[in-house]
This record gives sequence, C-alpha cells and structure tokens, in this order.
Amino acid sequence: MGVQKVEFCQFGAGRIGRIHAGNIAASDRASLRYVVDVNVEAAAELAKEHGGRPATMQEALADPAVDAVLIASPTDTHADLIEAAARAGKAIFCEKPIALDPARVDQAAETVRQAGVTTLIAFNRRFDPTLGGLGEAVSRGAVGEVETVIITSRDPAPPPVDYIAGSGGLFLDMMIHDFDMAHWILGEVPDEVFARGSNLVDPEIGKVGDVDTAVVTLTTKSGKLCQISNSRRAVYGYDQRIEAFGSEGMLRAGNRSARSLESWTKDAVSREKPLYFFLERYQEAYRNELAHFLDCLEGKATPLVGMEEGRVALALALAAKKSMESGLPVKMA
Amino acid sequence: MGVQKVEFCQFGAGRIGRIHAGNIAASDRASLRYVVDVNVEAAAELAKEHGGRPATMQEALADPAVDAVLIASPTDTHADLIEAAARAGKAIFCEKPIALDPARVDQAAETVRQAGVTTLIAFNRRFDPTLGGLGEAVSRGAVGEVETVIITSRDPAPPPVDYIAGSGGLFLDMMIHDFDMAHWILGEVPDEVFARGSNLVDPEIGKVGDVDTAVVTLTTKSGKLCQISNSRRAVYGYDQRIEAFGSEGMLRAGNRSARSLESWTKDAVSREKPLYFFLERYQEAYRNELAHFLDCLEGKATPLVGMEEGRVALALALAAKKSMESGLPVKMA
Amino acid sequence: MGVQKVEFCQFGAGRIGRIHAGNIAASDRASLRYVVDVNVEAAAELAKEHGGRPATMQEALADPAVDAVLIASPTDTHADLIEAAARAGKAIFCEKPIALDPARVDQAAETVRQAGVTTLIAFNRRFDPTLGGLGEAVSRGAVGEVETVIITSRDPAPPPVDYIAGSGGLFLDMMIHDFDMAHWILGEVPDEVFARGSNLVDPEIGKVGDVDTAVVTLTTKSGKLCQISNSRRAVYGYDQRIEAFGSEGMLRAGNRSARSLESWTKDAVSREKPLYFFLERYQEAYRNELAHFLDCLEGKATPLVGMEEGRVALALALAAKKSMESGLPVKMA
Amino acid sequence: MGVQKVEFCQFGAGRIGRIHAGNIAASDRASLRYVVDVNVEAAAELAKEHGGRPATMQEALADPAVDAVLIASPTDTHADLIEAAARAGKAIFCEKPIALDPARVDQAAETVRQAGVTTLIAFNRRFDPTLGGLGEAVSRGAVGEVETVIITSRDPAPPPVDYIAGSGGLFLDMMIHDFDMAHWILGEVPDEVFARGSNLVDPEIGKVGDVDTAVVTLTTKSGKLCQISNSRRAVYGYDQRIEAFGSEGMLRAGNRSARSLESWTKDAVSREKPLYFFLERYQEAYRNELAHFLDCLEGKATPLVGMEEGRVALALALAAKKSMESGLPVKMA
Repeated sequence: MGVQKVEFCQFGAGRIGRIHAGNIAASDRASLRYVVDVNVEAAAELAKEHGGRPATMQEALADPAVDAVLIASPTDTHADLIEAAARAGKAIFCEKPIALDPARVDQAAETVRQAGVTTLIAFNRRFDPTLGGLGEAVSRGAVGEVETVIITSRDPAPPPVDYIAGSGGLFLDMMIHDFDMAHWILGEVPDEVFARGSNLVDPEIGKVGDVDTAVVTLTTKSGKLCQISNSRRAVYGYDQRIEAFGSEGMLRAGNRSARSLESWTKDAVSREKPLYFFLERYQEAYRNELAHFLDCLEGKATPLVGMEEGRVALALALAAKKSMESGLPVKMA
Repeated sequence: MGVQKVEFCQFGAGRIGRIHAGNIAASDRASLRYVVDVNVEAAAELAKEHGGRPATMQEALADPAVDAVLIASPTDTHADLIEAAARAGKAIFCEKPIALDPARVDQAAETVRQAGVTTLIAFNRRFDPTLGGLGEAVSRGAVGEVETVIITSRDPAPPPVDYIAGSGGLFLDMMIHDFDMAHWILGEVPDEVFARGSNLVDPEIGKVGDVDTAVVTLTTKSGKLCQISNSRRAVYGYDQRIEAFGSEGMLRAGNRSARSLESWTKDAVSREKPLYFFLERYQEAYRNELAHFLDCLEGKATPLVGMEEGRVALALALAAKKSMESGLPVKMA
Repeated sequence: MGVQKVEFCQFGAGRIGRIHAGNIAASDRASLRYVVDVNVEAAAELAKEHGGRPATMQEALADPAVDAVLIASPTDTHADLIEAAARAGKAIFCEKPIALDPARVDQAAETVRQAGVTTLIAFNRRFDPTLGGLGEAVSRGAVGEVETVIITSRDPAPPPVDYIAGSGGLFLDMMIHDFDMAHWILGEVPDEVFARGSNLVDPEIGKVGDVDTAVVTLTTKSGKLCQISNSRRAVYGYDQRIEAFGSEGMLRAGNRSARSLESWTKDAVSREKPLYFFLERYQEAYRNELAHFLDCLEGKATPLVGMEEGRVALALALAAKKSMESGLPVKMA
Repeated sequence: MGVQKVEFCQFGAGRIGRIHAGNIAASDRASLRYVVDVNVEAAAELAKEHGGRPATMQEALADPAVDAVLIASPTDTHADLIEAAARAGKAIFCEKPIALDPARVDQAAETVRQAGVTTLIAFNRRFDPTLGGLGEAVSRGAVGEVETVIITSRDPAPPPVDYIAGSGGLFLDMMIHDFDMAHWILGEVPDEVFARGSNLVDPEIGKVGDVDTAVVTLTTKSGKLCQISNSRRAVYGYDQRIEAFGSEGMLRAGNRSARSLESWTKDAVSREKPLYFFLERYQEAYRNELAHFLDCLEGKATPLVGMEEGRVALALALAAKKSMESGLPVKMA
C-alpha cells in the first residue's frame, strides 16, 4: 500500500526531529522521503535510520511526490519554512512556536491561508490522552460552564543556559504550551494577562535575564479565570497537571508513572514518581498528533490546532512577559 | 433528659472496656451506672472517669434501673454474664466471641431466646463506615450477585504470647472477625472451610502451638468463594481490607490514614501509613455500634449481629482450626 | 481533677459556638462556666447542654474563676470583647477575623500586648491534621526552600446573600483563611497582592456587590509566589487543598472522605466525594485548636497564631479587595 | 546493520502471532524471515505486513540464516516445534504452555537440554513493568522474607466456549500465568495445591465441564502461603493485581489505565477503568519479552523463564485441577 502513504520531507534532525522521524517511519500511513538539516551528517544519519535521504529545501519542495513537510528545525526558521512549503502546496506539520514575532506569525498565516494547505501547529499536549482527554471532555461540557482553570507545569531540570538565551525565555519556550491549553480549555481568548516571575532555581538563568519560576493569571471577558504556574525544576520529575473546574464539577488531569507499583513499609506508602520528562511523558502524544495530521490529510478530521491557535499562544506569552516586566496586568488587543 | 438515658452496667474495665465506657459517657442517650470487674480498683477508676460506681454482678443486675449490660470482660465469662443478664431482663451488648465452646454458645443463645432480650454481639467491623459500608452496599446489590470475597487482616504487631495461650489462637481471636464479615458479605453460611497456617513471624508463637500467618478458603453451597489471609505483623500498620466481587462489579474497602498528605521527592511519591491499630482505626466503629445498640433499644433498628451470627463465626473459626490441623477441608454441619 | 480545669466564658451561642462549647464540655481539661449571647434563650440552651449558665459580659468577666474567654460572637463584637477580656486578665480564644478595620485590629492588639494575656486567633485550618501537618512540615524544611504555593478553597454551596452583605465579602469571610495559610507556609509576609474575581455562581451575589469566584497572586520580597483560588460552589463538596512546592520537592494536602470505599463498575472506578463542609471536615481541627489553646495556658506551647497573624490575614484580604476593584496589583505597606 | 539482526521464523499467524510479528518488525535488532502457518493465506498476509515470506517448517528450519524461532501456534504443536527447532540449533521463543501433558514437557525439555539452545517460555507477565517490577523487587528482598502472596486475575469477558473445550480449561489456559508468577515471587516450588471452582458466570462453560470462577491456595515447604483468585468476567475490565507481603512490608502491583483523568461530580470522584484486556495491558510486556530474548541471544542476559518454569506452572495447574475434582489438597511430587 506504499503508493498511498503520505510522503514527508522533514526539516530538522535534532532531538524532537528524531521522535517525529521515528513516528513517521513506524506509521503505516506515512513515509520519510527527505531529511533537511544544515548539519548534513545528522540528516544523513536520521535518513539512514528512518528512511529517505538528505536533501536541500529547494530540492525537497520541488519534488511533487512530497505531500507534507514536518518542521522540527530551530524556531527562527519556522516561518520561512512554513511559507516556502505553503507556496509549494505542501501540507504543514510545524513545531511550536511559529515565530517569536507576532507580525511574522500573521504574515506566515496569511501565506498559508492563501495557499489553502492543511496546517497543524504541534502543540503536543492537546494530543496527550490525559491532558487532551481533559480538553475534549471540557469542550463537550463535562464540567458544565468552565469557571476556573489551574495549570501546573514543571520541568525536572532547567535547560542549558545558552538554550534559554535563544528561546525567548520561560514564557515563550515553556509556558507557551500552557497558554495554548488554557486557550483551548477556557474556550475563549483571554482578555487580560498578569504575570509574576522569580529567579529561584539557578542564578545563571537570572544572569541571562530570564526567570525560572513564574505564575500567570488569565481573565476572560466572560469572567473565567485561569492560573498557571511554572518551574524549571522539580526534583520528583516532570509535573504536568491541569484542573478544570465548572458549574457541574471538576476534571483533574494528573501525572503518569511508568508502573503501578506501591511499596508499603514502616516509613510510608510510596508509589512511583512521574515519568521523567517530555520524551517519556508525551511519547503517545507525539504519535497521536502525527496520526491526527494524517487524518486531516485524509479528510477525516480538521486540524485541532492551527496558525490561529499558534498566534494566540504567542500573544499570551508576549503579554505575560510584558506584564512581568511592567509589573502591571496587560490587556490583549 | 437524663431520665430517658439508657442505664448501663458494664462488665470489664480493661482496654476495650475503657473504650466502651468512654462512648457510653459521651453519648447523650446512655449513662454508666455500674462497673463490675474482679479488679475493683480498675472498676473504681473507670467509674470515676466515666460515671457510675463499682458493684458486684448481683447488685447491678438486681437494680431495676439498669437497662442494659455491656460485657467487655474476659471471654470465658461472656456466656455466664449473657445468661445472668438475660434472666434479669437486661438488654445485652457483648464483646465477641460469645464462648470458645459451641455447645456453650447454643445454651446461652437459648437462654437469650427465652428471655427475649435485645442482644448485640460486638463485631465492630460491621459498624466501621468503610467496611460496614461495603457490607451494606453488597447486601443492597451493589455488586450484583456476589461471586468472590477477598479479606485481608494484618495486625501491626503480635500480641503477647501469653495472650495467645488463652485466646484460642489466631483463628479464634483474630480471624473470627473476618469470618463474621465473610458470612455477612457472602449472604450465606459457608459450607466448607479449608485453612493453612504457618509460624513465620515469631517462633514463640509456634512454641505455644499457634500460627501467626494463615489463609482460609470458604466455599458456599451456591458456589461463592471467599479467601481470607491473616498475619500477626505488618510493619506498615493495621491492614484491614475487603474486596467483594460480583456479576456487576467490585467494591473495595481500603485502609484509613490520619492525614491526606502526599510527599513528592526525588525518591518517590509517598503518603501516610494506615492508622496504627484497632483503637485508632475502629474509633468510629465502636461509637457506631453503641449507637446502633441504642437504636435497637429505641425500636428504631434490629440488631445487625446477634447470637446466631456469633455462633456462625465461632463455628467457622473452629472448622478452620480443625482444617489446619487435619490438613483437609472441613464441611460445616 | 476538676479544680484544675480551665473555666471558660463563651461569647456566642450560634453555629460555630455550639462546636466550641461541645469541645469544651468534652475536654477533660476545660469546663464551660458562662455563655453570653444577646439571644438569652440560645445561651441558656447551650449552657444546658454543655454546662455553665447564661450571664452578661460584665458578670462573667468579673468572676475571678473564669480563666479564659472563647469569642464566637458576630465579627463586629470581636475587638470589643478581646479588649474587655484582656483588661480583665482572661486568656483569649477568638474566632477570626479580629475586625474588618485594620486600625481597630491594631488597637485591640495593643490592648492585648499591654495586658499580656495569652491570645489565640482561631484560624482552624492550621490545626487540621492534613493542612496543619503540611504547614508544620514545610516549616521544618520538608520541601527545602519554598518556591510556589497553590491553594484551592471551594465551598459546596454559597451562603445566604444577606450573610455576604455583612461579612465583608469573599476575600474577608472566606479567602482570609487561605491568606493565613499562605502567610504561614510562605514563611514571609507577602509584599504584593493581585486579585481577580467574577460573579459566575449566583447573580444575587453580584447584586450585593460581591464576587463568588476569585483568584489571587501573592508575591514575597524574596520572590516566592502563591496562587489562591476560591469558589462559593463546588457540586462535589468542600474542596480544601494546598500544594507547597520547593527546592527539594512538594507536599500536597488533599481532601478527606468519610470512607475508603471504591466502586469498580462497567462505567468507572469511583470513590467517595470529599466531606461536605467545614463542620465535617474540620471537626478534628476544632478539637485540636482548643487543645492547643489549653496547652498554651499550661505553658506547654505558645500560640501558633495570634493577633499579628490575624492582622496580616486581614491586611491581605483588604489588599486583595482593593486590587480587584482597581484592577492593579497592590503593595503591602 | 541488517547483517547483525536476529532472523526469525515465526510459527503461527493468529492473534498473538500478529503481536509478536509486529514487535519483531519494529525492533532494530530483529527481522522476520519466515512465517509458517497451516493457513497459508494468513501467513502470507502477516509476512506482507511485517516482512519475510510464508514457508514450511522444513524449509525454514533448514535455512542456516534463521537464528531463532518464535512459536505462537496452537498449544498442541508447541512441543513438536520446540524439538524440531532445538534439533536444528535454533534459539526458541515459545508461547506458554509447552504442552498439556507433563511427560511431553519433560521430553521436550530433555531435547532442548541436549541441543543447548537458548529457550524462553513467554510468560509475558514477568515482563510487564508493573508485575515484573514487583517480581524483581521481591527477588531483591524488597519485602524482606516473603510470607503471603495474593494474586487476582480476572478477564473482562469469557472466551468462546469452544476455545475452553480445547484449552484445558481455566487452570491451564488462564491461571497458569498466576502459577508462574506465584512460583517466581514465592521463590520456591509450592508443595501443596488446594483449589475450589464454580460455574457462576456462564452456564455454557459449566456444560463443557469447566469452571469460570476459581480460587487456589499454594503452600510451600517453608510455610509461605499464596492465594490466587480468577474470574472469567469482570465488568470493569482486565483485573491483574499482585500483592507480596513479607517481614519488611508489602509491594502491591495495581492495574493500569489509559489516562490519569479524574472526574469530580455531585455523585462521586471517578477515574478511568483499567485497560480492557491483555492486548492493551501487556503491549509493553510483549515488547519487553522479545527484547529480553534478544538480550539473551547477545549474551547480555539469561532467560528469566525457561523449560523448567514452564514445567512447574503446568504441574501446578494440573494439581489444581485435580484438587478441584477430588475436593482434597494435592501434594506436588
């Protein structure tokens, strides 16, 4: 059935790229045709493992056999690649964020709109069975009218400081996921953002001008309230929880552990820690988001999260950053 | 409203007696009038703390103001006291077991029957909100037809060896509670008993001819199956769980902790151990069983567990002992 | 040992007064001597049930046999009663809040300071085994350096609207408990308060100018962050949770249920809802806070929460109200 | 690296065969070279999907490129295939049970011994992270000396009655897994088996002479005790739990759910049901057992479960059947 497989050109052969390439290769509905990376060796190695061959962007986009691009390259290349792919008529699966500059996002969105290509922005949490399950259930009214949303995201350990220097900082590289989930679960674009942040975990992070601990309050026009808290370090592992509270009850999404094993000793009753980090926790989410993208290409679904949602998440992240800097709440346009 | 209070004569001023006397004193429907104990000082002290005064059995039972007796004296006095109280027309609240000899139980039951006095045998677990709640729910059909019952009872630490010497051993002093719960939850008198026991915890227990670890299988005529396991020692505290499985699902009664506090560290996610032992775990059960007895006296309820249930639990315990000794399953008469 | 019992004069014979009077009566270290209430009948009834007799304030405070006062009368009488009791040299157990006007609180605090009487402000949550256990453990360094505190408080159902009209509103009658817990757990007086509130539960509450759903962010000088969320209604019952996160892990205090019973059916695995409301949930907390007060009088402890903590909680509540009204964060003096 | 991949010939293209073939294909250390099935179409289809081509046993075993066989054909072919593969010098991965006749097992074991080929009997539960994790931890002394083991296995729904007719019945097709786990966790071959069974779920099962509900007690020479209970139907899904209790505490292995999602409503606090059946629950276990087998072939591990363990599990199952039929405990030879 090879003729029917969706042929991918993947941009980016780094850590997240390896996951996506592996999922493409493991899918019986997709196939990896090209890998594009400035690091040609990395591209070659990934292609060797999961199929396809290294290529340049031009070469790959010119090949009519390519149905879709998967963009997992550095953030500052996303918008350019989205536009190039859109112009070449390829479907687009792009890692978040689209860009750090909202004007650039708008421009890329316009290009995509004109090209009319299917586009999925890879906010992976929406595809996690637990967190995505919460989002879907809330959308179906499982808690009645949503009133309060409480989101906790903590990484097990901070990233290298030089990563932070280029990532836009905590609100843009980390909390942006929570903004997208908040937007989805609230069912409204928040109207106001208030943020506070601290440098409590690693002084080096403070030196590059970022915080490692932050809380945000989102308020919607209809009065719904959302609280988000982030930390760059949790000694017990990746902490990813959401609580949606409403007129008819509450849904709570908790962490996941590798094993359901309890130990009862003279000291305590213990169970396992959460899965260590995103590679462990979101394994299924990454597979599911690819499957969702393929469903969209087959006309069985429409993208759960696209350019518009990417734009909103970025706008919330930038507003949070501005609020933290100014000390005041920031209204969304 | 003192005139309407149920006036008690309590037999036994030991550990379990202190609990019952305290509950009588704390109830606004009951009052302690006499305490009878061969240890007159203990009786006097208990009376001083919770009301009433020391007395002899004869004196107390001759007092028409006494409405009820609470028997918390040593096991070998239970049947005599039940009969004396029955003949004096007093309502009876008696600690389990009624006696260690089934013929003696039958005799006492006959005396009670003739006297027509209200009698409650204090199988406290039936009155524990969690375990009793399971029993009641199963009786109401919460799991459909009961098919399998699994009961786990473990004490935090073994009793003094000289206690065991006089108690009749594990099946009679400890597992008897589980036999009563099994009887209730199965909704049938078991037809066959198979037991195996070992001396794994304390060699001294073996020296007095008892086991400290035991498992029992009960089978009913209709094919329901029940597994009970006991240990005289659990390093993590009192372990009291029941699982009732049937055609429409399962009810699981778990342990109780003093606090709902979780600790997430680099090593594990921990919560509190179970409450240490019966005094902590069954505090509410003891209060509830007294309240139930008072309800019975007020005509609002009929005893949930009486002479007949006491007889069945004893018979099962003796059959288990016999099975362990013979190595063969034992049929109930 | 009656001569050594602490003799109480209790002010207030309403709902919370009944609980305290019952606990005094049940304690073997305390005794109820007088009940003072403008509703003399209520006072008489409470005295009949739990001991003592109705009296006027003057009469009661003039009696040298009175060791302590328990103030459970309406909020607007608290400060006057505190001062009168202090001047009479009585130890003081006072329900929160001290007053709604910070100047009045300062004045009363000064009077107490001069009188040198032992004073406990009854923030009951500090004495709940679970929530108080979290606070104590955090104080002992159980999570390392505290970084983020997340507090959720939801009532099962809103109070009558006329209660709200007189209570000062959600921040002063409800979230004030959370402010006290935050203050304790953070280990610092917060430096800034930001609040947002909505009227989502009951339009009548909005009509009297209050909110029924609110979130607050507290920031300390050292950069610790705290998020509080409140709702006047949770269909599943009283929701009282705290999460303290720090450099060495997290402590989570969860809700309490009456029974540890799980039901496994074809639809779901279910357990019991939380205890319904404060009377059920904080039964032990009320007993523990009285015991703590008695310990203080016996010189075995010093008050865990006094006038100063009462002042801080009030100041935070007022700042939150102001922030919500102004739309801006409010700095604490 | 294709030359280093372990080349498999798989026997059996049925349900469990599909899982194994998929895992071989997905592994970067293994490759499917032949599929052998009397249903040649099924073999061809499986080969088309996962690699290799249909072949006869003779053809496949004669190919020196074949390193290993994976036997997933009907039970009555296992012993013959084991022997043929052993004589051909192929490593053997065989589904349980080896045979239903212990003499046949011994014969096959002798052939394997003489051939000296690596052999793994696929008791998949040993490779489940949760259940296998318990077994490993107990082996390392996590509960001190093991004293009591309690195993619960319930299928969501009974198999077709004609399957039971050929499978040897509940003890041989279902409880055999529990016998293997018990053997492993007890760390001893049980000395005595006592079984009771009932026909409570489906009368048709009784008509073919089998039970659908059963409990077993195992006793070891050193006095360890084990209770196993099985049901062919659990309305809430696959129920696979083990509890190992010992001198230093307890390990409990619980069920697994697809999502960590809780729903708090006016009725209850609910979470998800367990994963539906073995295909869902043991997905990881099947992958892990293949990986373990490959590790054994690479000399990094020795088979955790081989012919001897297969023999013990069968012997226990047959003893249980005999005990149920005779009504008496059965001693192991």
